[in-house]
Amino acid sequence: MTTRRELANAVRALAMDAVEAAKSGHPGMPMGMADIAEVLWNDFLKHNPADPKWPNRDRFVLSNGHGSMLQYALLHLAGYDLPMAELKRFRQLHSKTAGHPEYGHTPGVETTTGPLGQGLANAVGFALAEKVLAAHFNRPGHTVVDHHTYVFLGDGCLMEGISHEASSLAGTWGLGKLVAIYDDNGISIDGEVEGWFTDDTAKRFEAYGWNVIRGVDGHDAEAIKRAITQATAQTDKPTLICAKTVIGFGAPHKQGKEESHGAPLGKDEVAAAREQLGWNHPPFEIPAEIYAGWDAKSKGAKREQDWNATLDAYAKAHPDLAAEFKRRLAGELPPDWADKAQAYIARMQAEGPEVASRKASQMALDAFGPLLPELIGGSADLAGSNLTKWKGSKDAGNGNGSEGQGNYVYYGVREFGMTAIANGLALHGGFIPYDATFLVFSDYARNAVRMSALIPAHAIHVYTHDSIGLGEDGPTHQPVEHLASLRYIPNNQVWRPCDAVESAVSWKAAIERKGNPACLVFSRQNLKHQQRSERQVADIARGAYVLSDPADTKFKAILIATGSEVELAMEAARTLAQQGVPVRVVSMPCTEVFDEQPQEYREGILPSWCRARVAVEAATADYWRKYVGLDGEVIGMTSFGASAPAPQLFEHFGFTVTHVVDAVKRTIG
Amino acid sequence: MTTRRELANAVRALAMDAVEAAKSGHPGMPMGMADIAEVLWNDFLKHNPADPKWPNRDRFVLSNGHGSMLQYALLHLAGYDLPMAELKRFRQLHSKTAGHPEYGHTPGVETTTGPLGQGLANAVGFALAEKVLAAHFNRPGHTVVDHHTYVFLGDGCLMEGISHEASSLAGTWGLGKLVAIYDDNGISIDGEVEGWFTDDTAKRFEAYGWNVIRGVDGHDAEAIKRAITQATAQTDKPTLICAKTVIGFGAPHKQGKEESHGAPLGKDEVAAAREQLGWNHPPFEIPAEIYAGWDAKSKGAKREQDWNATLDAYAKAHPDLAAEFKRRLAGELPPDWADKAQAYIARMQAEGPEVASRKASQMALDAFGPLLPELIGGSADLAGSNLTKWKGSKDAGNGNGSEGQGNYVYYGVREFGMTAIANGLALHGGFIPYDATFLVFSDYARNAVRMSALIPAHAIHVYTHDSIGLGEDGPTHQPVEHLASLRYIPNNQVWRPCDAVESAVSWKAAIERKGNPACLVFSRQNLKHQQRSERQVADIARGAYVLSDPADTKFKAILIATGSEVELAMEAARTLAQQGVPVRVVSMPCTEVFDEQPQEYREGILPSWCRARVAVEAATADYWRKYVGLDGEVIGMTSFGASAPAPQLFEHFGFTVTHVVDAVKRTIG
Repeated sequence: MTTRRELANAVRALAMDAVEAAKSGHPGMPMGMADIAEVLWNDFLKHNPADPKWPNRDRFVLSNGHGSMLQYALLHLAGYDLPMAELKRFRQLHSKTAGHPEYGHTPGVETTTGPLGQGLANAVGFALAEKVLAAHFNRPGHTVVDHHTYVFLGDGCLMEGISHEASSLAGTWGLGKLVAIYDDNGISIDGEVEGWFTDDTAKRFEAYGWNVIRGVDGHDAEAIKRAITQATAQTDKPTLICAKTVIGFGAPHKQGKEESHGAPLGKDEVAAAREQLGWNHPPFEIPAEIYAGWDAKSKGAKREQDWNATLDAYAKAHPDLAAEFKRRLAGELPPDWADKAQAYIARMQAEGPEVASRKASQMALDAFGPLLPELIGGSADLAGSNLTKWKGSKDAGNGNGSEGQGNYVYYGVREFGMTAIANGLALHGGFIPYDATFLVFSDYARNAVRMSALIPAHAIHVYTHDSIGLGEDGPTHQPVEHLASLRYIPNNQVWRPCDAVESAVSWKAAIERKGNPACLVFSRQNLKHQQRSERQVADIARGAYVLSDPADTKFKAILIATGSEVELAMEAARTLAQQGVPVRVVSMPCTEVFDEQPQEYREGILPSWCRARVAVEAATADYWRKYVGLDGEVIGMTSFGASAPAPQLFEHFGFTVTHVVDAVKRTIG
Repeated sequence: MTTRRELANAVRALAMDAVEAAKSGHPGMPMGMADIAEVLWNDFLKHNPADPKWPNRDRFVLSNGHGSMLQYALLHLAGYDLPMAELKRFRQLHSKTAGHPEYGHTPGVETTTGPLGQGLANAVGFALAEKVLAAHFNRPGHTVVDHHTYVFLGDGCLMEGISHEASSLAGTWGLGKLVAIYDDNGISIDGEVEGWFTDDTAKRFEAYGWNVIRGVDGHDAEAIKRAITQATAQTDKPTLICAKTVIGFGAPHKQGKEESHGAPLGKDEVAAAREQLGWNHPPFEIPAEIYAGWDAKSKGAKREQDWNATLDAYAKAHPDLAAEFKRRLAGELPPDWADKAQAYIARMQAEGPEVASRKASQMALDAFGPLLPELIGGSADLAGSNLTKWKGSKDAGNGNGSEGQGNYVYYGVREFGMTAIANGLALHGGFIPYDATFLVFSDYARNAVRMSALIPAHAIHVYTHDSIGLGEDGPTHQPVEHLASLRYIPNNQVWRPCDAVESAVSWKAAIERKGNPACLVFSRQNLKHQQRSERQVADIARGAYVLSDPADTKFKAILIATGSEVELAMEAARTLAQQGVPVRVVSMPCTEVFDEQPQEYREGILPSWCRARVAVEAATADYWRKYVGLDGEVIGMTSFGASAPAPQLFEHFGFTVTHVVDAVKRTIG
C-alpha cells in the first residue's frame, strides 16, 4: 500500500533530481511543500489533466514560483502532457519546464509566477472572476460556474507590499472560494527570517477579514486535510492556512536551512536524502504504484463530463445565456462588435467633440460598454479623474449576486495589486479587465504591467493625466519617462491618442488585442478635434498615419507628434506653410503598432529621403531618436516637470509654435 | 485669550484661501488635520524655524502630501522663511508652494511627498537613521543625536503596499522614536472608503509589533496631546495614533464628504466655513495674537543653542568623534577619499581580476567601505546574490547600540519599502545608503527610484543580474527594458561597468554624486578584464571613452557597448581587424554622464563624420538610436528573454561575434 508520504516523496525526488540535472534551481520549497501539495492535489483539486482549459477547473497558483519543480512534478504525476523528458530538461532552452512557471509554455500553469507576491494577487483576480462570472451566469438549479482558487505562497510573497493590497481587497470582497496556503518555513534567501520578518501574519490576515487557520503541521497529511476541509467549508471569507514546514524536508544536512533554498543539494546530499526519505529509485524514475496514486485523469474526465451535462441542461433552460457564456469563455467578441465600433469611430470623426482624451475615453466606454458585458473596469481610487466609470458601471466588488451585472471594481489606492488582479481576471476567462490610475503611478504597478505583456494577459491599462499638462499637482504627479518606459516593455502596446477619434480607435485596438495587453494614455486637458478623410480614419489603427500634407507641393520636413502635442504640430505646420516651408504632419498614437507595419507602409509615412524630422511629445525626448535619427530634432522633456497651470508649463518647457517652427527650419538647414 | 481651536482655524483659513486662489488643491485634509497639527507643532515638535537644517530637529513628514497647504500654513505660522506672498502663489510657477511638498523648494520640507505611502517609508528611514546615527556617535553623558520623527498619513497611504513593507520593518527594528498619526477620516477620492478599505488598521499594526493608540478624537486637543505624550513615552516600539477626523472640518456643506477632498470649496462654502469656524478675518490675513500663538522662533533658537552647548561639550570630550560627526552631517567625504579611491582603481587596472561585476562591486565595497563609515547598505533578501555585504558589514537593523557600528540592513523581500527608506536615510544626513536587488525587480521599487532623482536624495541603487546573462531563472528575472527605463528618469545616472576597473569607477562616481542618486548595474556572470592606458582609466569617469582604436589606420566604424557586451565588441573588433575592417570600440558605462560632457569631448569619442555605428547591449535595442541614428545598427533585445544557461541565451538572442561583424559591415555599406 502506497503511503501519502511516499506519494509526496515522488515530488521531492523529482525536484532534487531536476535541479541537480539543471545545475540550478530551488529544491527547498518543493521538498518542504510536497506533503501539502499531495493532499491538495489528490483530495481536493478539481481539474482534468486531459483538458487544462476546462473552464470550471479549480485554479492552482504557485505564488512562490521559484519552487517551479513542485508544479512541474505535480503536473507530470497527475497526468498532464508534461512527459518525464521535459522534467529532465528543466531550465533548458525551449523546454516546457522553465526556471519559473510560465503561462502558455506548460499545460496546467495558470499564470506566470516568480516575481513575488504577484501570484497571490493573480489568485485574488481568479477568485474575483469566479465570483462575478457566477453572478453573471449561474441561475437557480444551474450552477455552471463554481470552482476554488488555491494559491501557495511563501515568506517572500508575504513581505512584498502587493500581498497587503491584494489580501486587503480579497477580505473586503469576501472571496470565500480563495484558499491561500502559507509555507511558513522561517527561511528566506538571506537566512532565518526572524531578523527581518517578525509580523504576526495570522493576526495581520484577520485584520483583513480573512479566515485564518493557524499552526498547521505542513508534514501531517491529516492536519492538512482538516485545514483544507475547513477552508473550503468557509464560503464568505478567504482562508489563509498557516502551515509550518521544513524547507528541504528530507535532505539530512540542509533541511531547515537556507542552503536548500536556491541551489542544487549536491550529489552526496541527494543520495543522503534518498536514504532518509526511503526513496530507492533512480533519478527520474517513478514506480507504477506511485503514478497510480497520483493519476488524476479518470477522475478529471468524469468531472468534466458531469460539468458538460450541467452545461447542456443550462443550455436547454437558458439558451441565450449559454451561448453568451460560451462566447465569453472563448474570448470571442460579439458578432456585431466590429461594425458598431467602427460606426462609433465614424460618428466621432463627424461630430468632432473637443474634449480631454480621458473624457473621450469615457465616451468610448459608454459606446462600447453596452456591447461588451465582459468588460470589467476599475480604478485605483481615481474613478472621477480617470473617468473609468461609464453609464452601465455597477459595483462588482461584492459579487453583486442580486442582479448579476457587476462590472466595476473599486480598487482603492492599490495600483500594483489592481494590475496584478486584472491579470488574474484576464487569465481566468470570461472577462476583459481594464484598470486605471494616473500615468505617473503606473510606476507603482510597473512589474505587473510588465507581467501583463510577459504572461501575456489581455488587460487594458488606462493611464490619464499623461504629461505636464496635468498642471498644478506638480512633478510628483507629472509623468516624463513613463511613455518611453512602457513602450519599451516587449509585447506591450501604448496608445496616446490626440482626440476623440483616435481615443475610440485606441479602445477598439485594445479590446481586440486578444490575449495581449495595451496601455491607453489620456490627457487631463481638452484637445482639439482633427479633420480626417475616411482613409486617414482607417489608418489610425496602423499606429501612425499622415494627418496633414502640404496641398500643392512636396513637404520638406516631417513633424511627428502624439496626443496633446498633435495640435501643436498642426499649428506649427500651418505657420510654416505661411512662411513657405511645406511640412508633413504624422500623428503616431502607437509606435509599437506602427513598427509592426510592412516596410512599404512605414516608408510611405516616413520616407527615407526625408531626414528633416522633428518629433514633438511632452515626454522623454531621447525616445524619438529612433524616428528622427541624428539629423532630426525633438521637442520633448529632458527634466522633471513643475507645479503650475498647464498652459504656463507648456510654454516654460518649450512646447510652443515658435520652438517647433525653429526646430523644423534647423533640420532643413 | 487665543484658543487652540482658533490657532488651528488659522491653518484651515489659509488652506481654504490658498486653494481658492490657486483654483486647485486639496482643502479637506488640512482642515481635518489642523487640530492635530496644532497640538503636535505647538506642544511637541522640536525644531528651529530660523535653521531648518539644524541636525537634531524632529523630522516632520506629510505622507498624505496632497494636503500640502497644511504644511505650508504650519511653516508660515511657525516662522519659517515662507512669507504670505508665497502662500498666495500656491501652485504657481516658481513659487515656494508647489502642489505637493517639494524638498529643496520650501524650507522645512524634509522630503518630497505626494506619491502615497512613500512619505511613511521615508519617515521610517529618518527614524532608522536617527537610531543608527545615535549608536554611532552618542557616548555616555553626551547625547548629540536624539530626535523624533513624526509622520502624518491618510487612508491612501495605508492602502498602498509600501505601507506594509515599511511598517513591518519599523516594527521589527523597534523604532521607538517614530510616531505616525493616521488621519482616519473615512474618505478617499472615490468616496466613503468602506467599500474598498475595511482593514482593521489598528490590529494590522499591532501585528507588526507597533504600539497602537486607538480611537483618538482628532478634534480634541487634550485627547491628541495625551496620545502624543503616550507615543513619545514609548521608546522601544513605533507608535500609530489612529485619529478620527472630519475631512474638511468647518465647511458646513462639504465636511465629511469627498467634495472637500481635492477641489476648491467654492466662494460660498468658504464664506460659510468662515462663519461656522468663527474666523472673521479676510483671506490671507492672520491676527497678531494668532501669529504669537504659533511663533516657534524663540523656542527653536533656544533649543538649538542648548544643543550647540551639548555639541561643544562632546567636542571637548571626544574631539575626533565630534569632527567625524560634523563631517558626516555636512555630507563631506574624508580628505583621503579621492586619493585612496583612485589608487584602488589603478590597482584594479594593474591586477585585472576577471570576475563578475557584482563581485567587482563587492571588492570595491571592501576597498571603499573602511574609508566611509557613512555607508549603510542593504539588500532585499539577496545579500548573497547582490554581494552587498563586505568584510565590515554589521547588522544595523536593531540599531546595534552595543557597538555602534551597524552599517548593514536586512530589508527582507521589500524592494519598494527598502528604496524609499534609503531615500529617508539619505535625506536625514550622516549616511550614504545603498540598497540592492536584481535589476528586474527595480520595477517593484520604480517610483521610489524616481523619487531619489526628483527629491533628490543621495541613494545608491545596486542592481545585479543585469541581463539575460542571469540565465536559467528565465524571463521573469531577466531585465530587458530596465536599463533604458532607468536612464530615462531625469537626474538619474545609470552605470553598467564592463570589468572590475569600471566597477570601481562606478562606485566612486556614485559615492561622489553628493545629493543625487545613481544606479549601479552589475552582471551575474564573469567578465573579461580590459587593458587601458592611464588616460583611458581617467576617462571612464566621463561616461564613455575610446577603449580601442585601430593601430595604424583610421577606423571606418564605431562599436559602442556597455557591461558584459564590451568584451563581445572587442572580440568583434579583433575579427574585423583581421578582415581588414578597422573599427573603434567605445565603452560607455554611463550614457547620462557622457551626455553631460562638453561637445568637444563627445565629438572626440563619436565623431559626426562616422555614421557607421553599431551599439551592442543585451537590453532594449531602440534606446541606442540616440547614438547610432538611422544609419547605424543595434545588437540588442527586442523581446523578453528565456530560461536557459546564459551562453545559450546570448547565442540565441544574437549576441555573437558573427552578428556584430555583419552589422558593422552593413553599416559601412
